[in-house]
Amino acid sequence: MISTKGYATHDANAKFGPFEFERRDVGPNDILIDIEYCGICHSDIHAAKNEWEAMMPSTYPLVPGHEIVGRVSQVGDAVTKFKVGDVAGIGCFVDSCRECSPCENGTEQFCQKMAAFTYAGTYMDRVTPTYGGYSDKYVIDERYAHNVRATGDLAGVAPLLCAGITTYSPLKRFKVGPGQKVGVVGLGGLGHMAVKIAKAMGAEVTIFSTSPSKESDAEALGADHFVVTRDPANLAPLAGTFNFILDTVSADHDLNQYFGLLGVGGTMAVVGVPPNPTQIHQFGLIFGNKTLAGSLIGGIPETQEMLDFCAEHNITADVEVITPDRIEEAYDRTLRSDVRYRFVIDMTN
Amino acid sequence: MISTKGYATHDANAKFGPFEFERRDVGPNDILIDIEYCGICHSDIHAAKNEWEAMMPSTYPLVPGHEIVGRVSQVGDAVTKFKVGDVAGIGCFVDSCRECSPCENGTEQFCQKMAAFTYAGTYMDRVTPTYGGYSDKYVIDERYAHNVRATGDLAGVAPLLCAGITTYSPLKRFKVGPGQKVGVVGLGGLGHMAVKIAKAMGAEVTIFSTSPSKESDAEALGADHFVVTRDPANLAPLAGTFNFILDTVSADHDLNQYFGLLGVGGTMAVVGVPPNPTQIHQFGLIFGNKTLAGSLIGGIPETQEMLDFCAEHNITADVEVITPDRIEEAYDRTLRSDVRYRFVIDMTN
Repeated sequence: MISTKGYATHDANAKFGPFEFERRDVGPNDILIDIEYCGICHSDIHAAKNEWEAMMPSTYPLVPGHEIVGRVSQVGDAVTKFKVGDVAGIGCFVDSCRECSPCENGTEQFCQKMAAFTYAGTYMDRVTPTYGGYSDKYVIDERYAHNVRATGDLAGVAPLLCAGITTYSPLKRFKVGPGQKVGVVGLGGLGHMAVKIAKAMGAEVTIFSTSPSKESDAEALGADHFVVTRDPANLAPLAGTFNFILDTVSADHDLNQYFGLLGVGGTMAVVGVPPNPTQIHQFGLIFGNKTLAGSLIGGIPETQEMLDFCAEHNITADVEVITPDRIEEAYDRTLRSDVRYRFVIDMTN
Repeated sequence: MISTKGYATHDANAKFGPFEFERRDVGPNDILIDIEYCGICHSDIHAAKNEWEAMMPSTYPLVPGHEIVGRVSQVGDAVTKFKVGDVAGIGCFVDSCRECSPCENGTEQFCQKMAAFTYAGTYMDRVTPTYGGYSDKYVIDERYAHNVRATGDLAGVAPLLCAGITTYSPLKRFKVGPGQKVGVVGLGGLGHMAVKIAKAMGAEVTIFSTSPSKESDAEALGADHFVVTRDPANLAPLAGTFNFILDTVSADHDLNQYFGLLGVGGTMAVVGVPPNPTQIHQFGLIFGNKTLAGSLIGGIPETQEMLDFCAEHNITADVEVITPDRIEEAYDRTLRSDVRYRFVIDMTN
């Protein structure tokens, strides 16, 4: 077994502290990754505080983190994708049944036996707990690890493994490209990735935000337009003009106002889960043959595709790098949206 | 002007009675249709009773009817699609701006200047009222009329012009075909058309109904399975098994239970407008990359395609033919779902 140092919380109200645990030995198909950076995703906070208890109860000690990059320090005999010294990434899951139709189709996140999520879950034996990337090492079957070809800012690569694929997947699925008008609702960790990726895909991008103060950021990120949604008068002239809108907001909010902004046959995709049910006026979808789509991260092949796309287009997340002793502070600031746009923990410290 | 005999209601609470009015003379691009049959669509009832006042206030006298078939009795000099004696159909709209992008793309129902709906609206001059198919004649530009190649049961063809295209369009758009499992929610005027069309497209079709008494009808219509939705235990074994579900219900009901029946990437389409907003749990769309789509009738080219498809597959609606003096009774019975599955008025009487 491989001794690992991480940071855990021991119940929903506890603070993070050092936690030592063991990872499995490196098997024939495994690689050992010395973790360098791990992003702080809003999901980490929900899990740490057990806020998704009804859906996915947290088990403690809990070591969060599913936006992981590091260096390969050991490879099993049968490994072909990696060699020692390569940069590797881990996203939201680390194994799945490999036999069901979603697994065979490269949408392992929907594995019919439920994927082994990177933390707060169990491996496929359904017994051994998974511990995430707020730690110094991870052992993973190479099938579920990603090649990171980007050079330079590795801290900015980490958030691609969740925020990046979460936004890339629907933009790709709905064929965003040149000549298209794309809206991004919410300018946070997900939204800022969506802007960068949609721009790299060639679209004209409009950010919809409740915060007038983010206008200068929107411009810096490359957005073509910035619309403050608090005043409905700002939306009226945009009726029927969008091909696709990606809604990254997970707070309760009104979706119906965006249906009217889509052109005939347009699609709005949601990637967040608001606390309460969303009220939909069906007429808003029916008039114009419009579509509301859900999207959850991405499978292994598409995540690799996204990493390659981002490397090619020099896309990384805008990050604030912190030491592990500042996790609590980062959580507090993330909850206040006081981060532009992702905290990343430097695990080499 | 062409003197026309119809049946109108004069306010939201009045009864239908004979009403004479004039249609325009036959212009170079027009055809005159001697109406033989007109279906009674649920929309007719909403309009007659002004129940859609907020969205589309009714104007009186109101002559409903947008499921129209008849014989061409006169053609303008420039007409090319029709000759005297041909069977022609009219659906939900009779003109549009012909210049906007939806009109150019054959989705005239979404004309940016608003199509001229077949009744209870105005022609494109926005002054002249439109009167529907509860009448003995219609003058229409041939661009907005359809060739009916079906022989035999013309009464059963009439409902194709609304109920047929309303269900055909989403089935076609989401590529329903052999090897696919398709659900149809609600077995009424729309649902029974959806079953026939989806079967003709080659799908395995399951009907979801609240009425156990409709099981024998479901079989007669060609459905492969019939599921009574009142007991959730009937739905549980079907989780994740459907490619596509078409929801034809316009009463308030729970959509979320159907998201779970869709497989990864599956789509549910809605064609009804329930009185109250629909509550959606976004997680149900997100987990499985699922889609909720709206669909409104179809454009002129697709309506012709649907009529040709139905002629080729010998598909007509199951109808109960009535004389015009029984409109009130038919409305009452339609509201009680006491019709299998569409009333059609014989206008030759």
